[in-house]
Amino acid sequence: MKGTVFVLSGPAGSGKSTVRQRLMDKGLNFHYSVSDTTRKPREGEVNGVDYTFITKKQFEEGIKNGVYYEHANYTGEYYGTPVSQLLPYIESGVNVILEIEVDGAMQVKAKDKNAVLVMLLPPSYRVLEERLRGRGTESEEKILRRLNRAKDEIRLFDRYDYFLLNEDGKIDECVKQLQMIAETQQYKTKNNPDFPSKFLGI
Amino acid sequence: MKGTVFVLSGPAGSGKSTVRQRLMDKGLNFHYSVSDTTRKPREGEVNGVDYTFITKKQFEEGIKNGVYYEHANYTGEYYGTPVSQLLPYIESGVNVILEIEVDGAMQVKAKDKNAVLVMLLPPSYRVLEERLRGRGTESEEKILRRLNRAKDEIRLFDRYDYFLLNEDGKIDECVKQLQMIAETQQYKTKNNPDFPSKFLGI
Repeated sequence: MKGTVFVLSGPAGSGKSTVRQRLMDKGLNFHYSVSDTTRKPREGEVNGVDYTFITKKQFEEGIKNGVYYEHANYTGEYYGTPVSQLLPYIESGVNVILEIEVDGAMQVKAKDKNAVLVMLLPPSYRVLEERLRGRGTESEEKILRRLNRAKDEIRLFDRYDYFLLNEDGKIDECVKQLQMIAETQQYKTKNNPDFPSKFLGI
Repeated sequence: MKGTVFVLSGPAGSGKSTVRQRLMDKGLNFHYSVSDTTRKPREGEVNGVDYTFITKKQFEEGIKNGVYYEHANYTGEYYGTPVSQLLPYIESGVNVILEIEVDGAMQVKAKDKNAVLVMLLPPSYRVLEERLRGRGTESEEKILRRLNRAKDEIRLFDRYDYFLLNEDGKIDECVKQLQMIAETQQYKTKNNPDFPSKFLGI
């Protein structure tokens, strides 16, 4: 069986990086797809681990050369999944997890109908607002931009396959739910088109 | 959230009754839909628990009066799911599990695109043959009929959403897998169309 592509999206403040890291820590059959980006590294981010940080020129060159499986421009910076982070793994039966924005998620689903799109959300918009303000590190303008972005994202809710709520203090449950979703994919008939001939021994 | 309809199908010898009973024993939010049938009760079967045993005339009357959500004729006998075994439960948020043949399963999916169709299978046709012959209670003719029927059923493999293998001595795993499939349905966006407005508080 081929690997499955899992897309994890969610607004800033949904906790998607933590959930994804916890899932990876379980040592399951997952590869985390490292995106290319033109934005500057944030404190603690490691090149080639969190993102591969490249220049605008390099990214645009990559687009031209078909390097990207999906790519999007978000607040003036490029983000993209190199084909090399995805296809070789899928082909060899390894699942790949992508932590990307909604625009990229739509591109992935259009290319691979078996991709599983999961939207991670705080319990409500109100809680999201509290979390973003609670950080106390960002300008009001930035917070409002993020909140508006979250509203745009939730509009694509029904284009996603699953959604999970990351409630305060319940991240373990959320990771477990994501793991269940991942595990059940192997029992989907559409992921096993060869099974009937195998079953009949033909 | 409304309840979900789960259909469990599988050839004689797949162990679907046992798997279904074990799932029910876990005390989850499930109602087992008791089918009407015109066939004679087998030893140990209780009227109103395993099936509701009725006459051909009663069944045909029921068809005429729109009593059935789905019904099929299988080896000369009628089998059907009364609407009353299904809709009231779904509407009040209880999941319903149907143990029915492939023809009925197709009718259910046509009526309810959110219904979850699970095909339970032995690991291979060969194992199925061994199991059926191993019983030592059925005529060769009946065994061959069941085997041919299984071949017909596997042709509808890709019309099912999930498939599970019931391997010898591993029924607990199989029940656990079915339970996971059931649990993950609540995280499907299509089962929660009202979530976005709830999230936004509008």
